[in-house]
Amino acid sequence: MNSQIKNDLSNVQFVGVNDMISLVNTQGIPAFITGLIEYLEQDFMQWDGFDKSPRYAAHSPEGVIELMPTGNLDKFSFKYVNGHPKNTKRGLQTVTAFGVLSDVDSGYPLMLSEMTLLTALRTAATSAMMAKYLAPENATTMAMIGCGAQSEFQAIAFNHVIGVKTVRLYDIDPAAIAKCRDNLRSYDIEVVVCDSAEQALQGAQIITTCTADKKNATILTSEMVKDALYVNAIGGDCPGKTELEDDLLLRAKVFVEYEPQTRIEGDIQQLTPEFSVTEMHRVIKGEIQGRTAQNELIIFDGVGFAVEDYSALRYVFDLANSDGQQLELLANPQDPRNLFGITL
Amino acid sequence: MNSQIKNDLSNVQFVGVNDMISLVNTQGIPAFITGLIEYLEQDFMQWDGFDKSPRYAAHSPEGVIELMPTGNLDKFSFKYVNGHPKNTKRGLQTVTAFGVLSDVDSGYPLMLSEMTLLTALRTAATSAMMAKYLAPENATTMAMIGCGAQSEFQAIAFNHVIGVKTVRLYDIDPAAIAKCRDNLRSYDIEVVVCDSAEQALQGAQIITTCTADKKNATILTSEMVKDALYVNAIGGDCPGKTELEDDLLLRAKVFVEYEPQTRIEGDIQQLTPEFSVTEMHRVIKGEIQGRTAQNELIIFDGVGFAVEDYSALRYVFDLANSDGQQLELLANPQDPRNLFGITL
Repeated sequence: MNSQIKNDLSNVQFVGVNDMISLVNTQGIPAFITGLIEYLEQDFMQWDGFDKSPRYAAHSPEGVIELMPTGNLDKFSFKYVNGHPKNTKRGLQTVTAFGVLSDVDSGYPLMLSEMTLLTALRTAATSAMMAKYLAPENATTMAMIGCGAQSEFQAIAFNHVIGVKTVRLYDIDPAAIAKCRDNLRSYDIEVVVCDSAEQALQGAQIITTCTADKKNATILTSEMVKDALYVNAIGGDCPGKTELEDDLLLRAKVFVEYEPQTRIEGDIQQLTPEFSVTEMHRVIKGEIQGRTAQNELIIFDGVGFAVEDYSALRYVFDLANSDGQQLELLANPQDPRNLFGITL
Repeated sequence: MNSQIKNDLSNVQFVGVNDMISLVNTQGIPAFITGLIEYLEQDFMQWDGFDKSPRYAAHSPEGVIELMPTGNLDKFSFKYVNGHPKNTKRGLQTVTAFGVLSDVDSGYPLMLSEMTLLTALRTAATSAMMAKYLAPENATTMAMIGCGAQSEFQAIAFNHVIGVKTVRLYDIDPAAIAKCRDNLRSYDIEVVVCDSAEQALQGAQIITTCTADKKNATILTSEMVKDALYVNAIGGDCPGKTELEDDLLLRAKVFVEYEPQTRIEGDIQQLTPEFSVTEMHRVIKGEIQGRTAQNELIIFDGVGFAVEDYSALRYVFDLANSDGQQLELLANPQDPRNLFGITL
């Protein structure tokens, strides 16, 4: 019945959750992140060649469903991601994601991949990549404020890429801290459990804020930040969700992924458009320097951008290429005008 | 290793090409289309509840990749569709498509489905549904200008839903006409092969134009349309791609799916915004009448809208429910904050 379908072309590579876990564990999380940073840097170097548009967001009373497309002359990608805070009450994820990578010349999708796990990895890889350019030299201690789903990946990335030896954990929920501590046990990271954000900040050169509350919270006040010289602020990532006091931002040099999106979604949504920020692709391309003095305070106001998902999908496609599951997603009759023929 | 993944929730129903062919052939194309029209009418009746936004289009030298999202308080859907005219030269489809249906309350995707075949079926179902309200009574003959991938589905839909007995085929390529004629052999439809568009129009009360040329073509001039009272114009569906002479549009009452999109993509892109058109949901809801006189000329300027894909996905989800292939697309750790745990 389906002799007219050319299976070689109608198939799309599928990377499911278990496939992704295998891909990650084959090389281990640190090496996976290092490899991903190479892809991220390649794509940030080619920043101007990407089609950058705001994400599409469908809001409902319970949450939001977003589509994040981007692409260049070679590949196109989009990520589907939801955000539903009440999901956890019924044992579902607040955030799930999947993505598609396509060939631009033919328009054909090449790969469908889970992206819940992959997004956590790309977010950690992005944070560590930015810190390569922005963090002070010889930083060895990081405060981690918020010990949710992203926390272990951040700790491992900063340990492996930046050389952080000590991570000081704080979360409003002690169970989350214990979970993060236990998960990091097999890594060569000194983990310090703290009773307050203030305690976590003691002696830390780097602060990562990654909290989940969907509101304008003040996780870090300006006064709290005395010693640290770098804030990796990744929890404030949608309108109405911020983590940093405006005074702290005003004191610092702020770097962002893509200014038009960060003005809406990042911590700088609290500030007027006159407040100057720098897009990181300029730093990565070497157009301008990131950190210019060891003692200046720098904030990376990260919100997550579609180009990072593109890099992550491209990386996974290269890792997973040709083996693995295939989906017969595309009808492909031998005579394209005879689509009807595949039903005969 | 994956004891923490709850497979019941992390799975997404997959309807591949062969699954879709089976779903269609189980009941036959006419019954499939009739069932789909019920879903289309339900959704057009609830038109105001849909989030309607322009499609996202990524243009490249060789073609375009589009995302068409929509949704209401119950379900969200999007379709991925490409348009690459040169694909046929290397044995690929000009247009391929797939789609996703999601649950709005949780944000979780429920189903991933092929949509190349499904789009052909929903386009034919949409055309036949519109004709129920707009075509003259007792129309028995339809001219089909353009015998590409959509033609057989249109012929079958108009035969089954509207009562068209005779289809008069014309295409600039005789092989396309022969293909359409052969494919319709097992249906109770009189097929007449014609040498010109003019010949195809003879005695036809209904004209369907469905040609593929991506330019402002004049498939139908005003002068050519003498007897017909209804034009189902579905080939003019993107900027710079039209089929009807402007004078023909000016003579007729024109109905559209969603005015803002049709102004850009439909045949009415040739006219000024002052030219009045009517959105079909108003007719289907009974707010206003479609055809008010048997002898008036009516044109449906169809471009294909995301709500129709939503209806088609909803229909297929109900048909395919619970049996069939499942994709483990969504990471679903028992403790949502312990995403890291699934890698252990």
